[in-house]
Amino acid sequence: MRTDDQPIRISLFAPNGRMGIAIAAAVAEDPGFEIDADHGDVLVDFSAPSALQASLDRAIAAGTPILVGTTGLDDFASRRIATAAEQVPVLRAANTSLGVALLSDLVERAARVLGPQWDIEILEMHHRMKADAPSGTALALGDAAARGREAKMKAERGRDGTNLKREEGAIGFASLRGGTVAGDHDVIFAGPEERLILSHRAENRMIFARGALAAARFLVGKPAGLYSMRDVIGADEA
Amino acid sequence: MRTDDQPIRISLFAPNGRMGIAIAAAVAEDPGFEIDADHGDVLVDFSAPSALQASLDRAIAAGTPILVGTTGLDDFASRRIATAAEQVPVLRAANTSLGVALLSDLVERAARVLGPQWDIEILEMHHRMKADAPSGTALALGDAAARGREAKMKAERGRDGTNLKREEGAIGFASLRGGTVAGDHDVIFAGPEERLILSHRAENRMIFARGALAAARFLVGKPAGLYSMRDVIGADEA
Amino acid sequence: MRTDDQPIRISLFAPNGRMGIAIAAAVAEDPGFEIDADHGDVLVDFSAPSALQASLDRAIAAGTPILVGTTGLDDFASRRIATAAEQVPVLRAANTSLGVALLSDLVERAARVLGPQWDIEILEMHHRMKADAPSGTALALGDAAARGREAKMKAERGRDGTNLKREEGAIGFASLRGGTVAGDHDVIFAGPEERLILSHRAENRMIFARGALAAARFLVGKPAGLYSMRDVIGADEA
Amino acid sequence: MRTDDQPIRISLFAPNGRMGIAIAAAVAEDPGFEIDADHGDVLVDFSAPSALQASLDRAIAAGTPILVGTTGLDDFASRRIATAAEQVPVLRAANTSLGVALLSDLVERAARVLGPQWDIEILEMHHRMKADAPSGTALALGDAAARGREAKMKAERGRDGTNLKREEGAIGFASLRGGTVAGDHDVIFAGPEERLILSHRAENRMIFARGALAAARFLVGKPAGLYSMRDVIGADEA
Repeated sequence: MRTDDQPIRISLFAPNGRMGIAIAAAVAEDPGFEIDADHGDVLVDFSAPSALQASLDRAIAAGTPILVGTTGLDDFASRRIATAAEQVPVLRAANTSLGVALLSDLVERAARVLGPQWDIEILEMHHRMKADAPSGTALALGDAAARGREAKMKAERGRDGTNLKREEGAIGFASLRGGTVAGDHDVIFAGPEERLILSHRAENRMIFARGALAAARFLVGKPAGLYSMRDVIGADEA
Repeated sequence: MRTDDQPIRISLFAPNGRMGIAIAAAVAEDPGFEIDADHGDVLVDFSAPSALQASLDRAIAAGTPILVGTTGLDDFASRRIATAAEQVPVLRAANTSLGVALLSDLVERAARVLGPQWDIEILEMHHRMKADAPSGTALALGDAAARGREAKMKAERGRDGTNLKREEGAIGFASLRGGTVAGDHDVIFAGPEERLILSHRAENRMIFARGALAAARFLVGKPAGLYSMRDVIGADEA
Repeated sequence: MRTDDQPIRISLFAPNGRMGIAIAAAVAEDPGFEIDADHGDVLVDFSAPSALQASLDRAIAAGTPILVGTTGLDDFASRRIATAAEQVPVLRAANTSLGVALLSDLVERAARVLGPQWDIEILEMHHRMKADAPSGTALALGDAAARGREAKMKAERGRDGTNLKREEGAIGFASLRGGTVAGDHDVIFAGPEERLILSHRAENRMIFARGALAAARFLVGKPAGLYSMRDVIGADEA
Repeated sequence: MRTDDQPIRISLFAPNGRMGIAIAAAVAEDPGFEIDADHGDVLVDFSAPSALQASLDRAIAAGTPILVGTTGLDDFASRRIATAAEQVPVLRAANTSLGVALLSDLVERAARVLGPQWDIEILEMHHRMKADAPSGTALALGDAAARGREAKMKAERGRDGTNLKREEGAIGFASLRGGTVAGDHDVIFAGPEERLILSHRAENRMIFARGALAAARFLVGKPAGLYSMRDVIGADEA
């Protein structure tokens, strides 16, 4: 049983993956955490969709909170997560940066206040090696906008051609790839003769690792349930 | 007594000023409004600080709501406005664009959620003829940020020199002037290795005139009290 | 025969089109020009590809310079323009803003200097009604970049999906649509841990009309030949 | 005497300074270079203005090229550098990133082409610890713009107040400070209803170290003379 003055023990799935290595580096610079291969206080899974069930099973068996940072999960995986969250605290995040968590909250709020004359467009830029477009974070921001509008998401992706017609209420997505960009996101509300633009700039990937540790700290001692990064930043109480 | 299907009569102070002309143009394109030199349903004052008392007196004498868009008002003027608002509805706005009203709400919210490690900087660009810097809107956005932080505003303006030291908790302001830019504002929250940037772009000045009409429509039938553009967009109920 | 102190007479094809109306408005505000339905000093064609041959024939028959601002022209049309340019001065432009003409020059130069490790991405945003994507101007900027690299254009358009792989030497295009945006273009050179971004912002469409008049003034008295907006701004002698 | 297949030996002044450490790290990742405390093929000085004369003397005594990256040098130091450049190759740079070298070239070119109706403004953002404003790079970009205009620099710095009047031909500077920003620069040409914006984004400081190595490689075997980063990127021949 840990006490508050002991470091929080992080148990990493896929410790040799890109995020696993970054989280280990973040732990190394923060005395409030340590890596524990076996019996962590919090399980952290940034592995692959195929490994999700095993991760959730281990969390349930050990009665331990789990952070799920895996992206590309389908509806079936979402239901598994919901089921696990009945027994242990589960935090699911497509992006663990604190800034993006707040951005998502602001986007939902702006979409709720602005009327349908304000078109919504989401732009992201990432390094040349990123293989999926739009980014998972861009899609999650689109979901936040659709929640704010209380409307089903109508995505317009990969605009290219002639005789295109922007559909009423659509949310457009565009993706730039190049260089070593860690991650830029812009949510543009384009109204009649004015624009509101809500943006996030990641300088490097360590912010995702540090945000994952903030999420782990948040999870310690929480009751079973499904959480998000917006709970970590406390946006919903602000 | 007007009914809902009659146009709202706008009585303009300083009808030949820059904003007076723009509001007259906005009225001309909107059948829901008409200009009435004498007995308006709403008084609209975009004149000068020296004319404020006369405007407020006329609103009180006629029992008519008033929109005060004048900038450069001092604390004494603020107290006069508060006193008038005990008798008639008064809406005070440094900027009547709907997008800026929402931006101000989002800035306050972001400043509340983000900790003091996130430095706040406010940038604005306007046309080459604008004589004051920072813009009144930039200062109002700084006030919103300070409210969110529940801290007194510590402004850093006109940064220039060597041996400068950004003060903990300061809000920095920078002003660009050139060309015919109608008005750009950026509020930058610069945290450890990430940035959140909340921006507004005005394409031309008609948005301020149309926002003034939205404010006038909001004021009709309201009880006495002091209102802001955030009431017009309903941000505080969202 | 006109003398230098007489206004330049502009003869407009498609005077009731969007650009025809804007050019007439620009002529109305500039005493150096007048509209002449029949015998202009310069013919100005912003009509449709199908009307090109008639416009060129009229220019040749009258021995008059012609500005071709029509977009969507195919290779066959390009050859017709080249043939006409053997007899009269012809200026062809996808975009008549002076700023975009200079941007195109700077993009070509930057692409020439920077090595292939710098990925090139081109982003544009236009109002919600624009039906083609990418914009003609974005494609012309891509051509300028390819010229600078002395390479054939390899365009990546409409990025959307998984398992995408940015091809070495590709030029990426992305399009945003919304609101009333007159036209934003960004050419991004994304290198190892740094980016160079060359951007243009149009505040409204009158800049295209005024640029067309600058092109018309340039054409008066020129020898037969094919010209571009870069000749108008003198970029190639700078 | 080194041959082309041997690493270039870098002799660092102030090896424990911020840039000294970064250059040593860049050398460690590039087999084409090695650190040599005593008898380098190229001397690299990122120390302090007070140490400049000793650095130049050592370069002259050894007949070795020298890179001077020190900022804050006065006119007297500039003359010393010019004198040394009569005997050995000297490259002086306020900023050793390749992207900024190209940006400077493009800014000069744009300022030459655009007329005086285009106002020039220069904006920079750096991390919260940077003590001088505007940045040395921003000032160097302003010099490039003034060269392009063939005019003496008229700087407007630290704009703050009322009754300001943008002077004809002035170049405005504005500085933002916050977070951990490595270095953003924007040069804005604001014309009538359009803007051209030339920007650079540094993701981290290693680009300056790698650019210093590119400068060192350029200097090997060059004749005596005064060089700049624009020679390194070959902008003037492009």
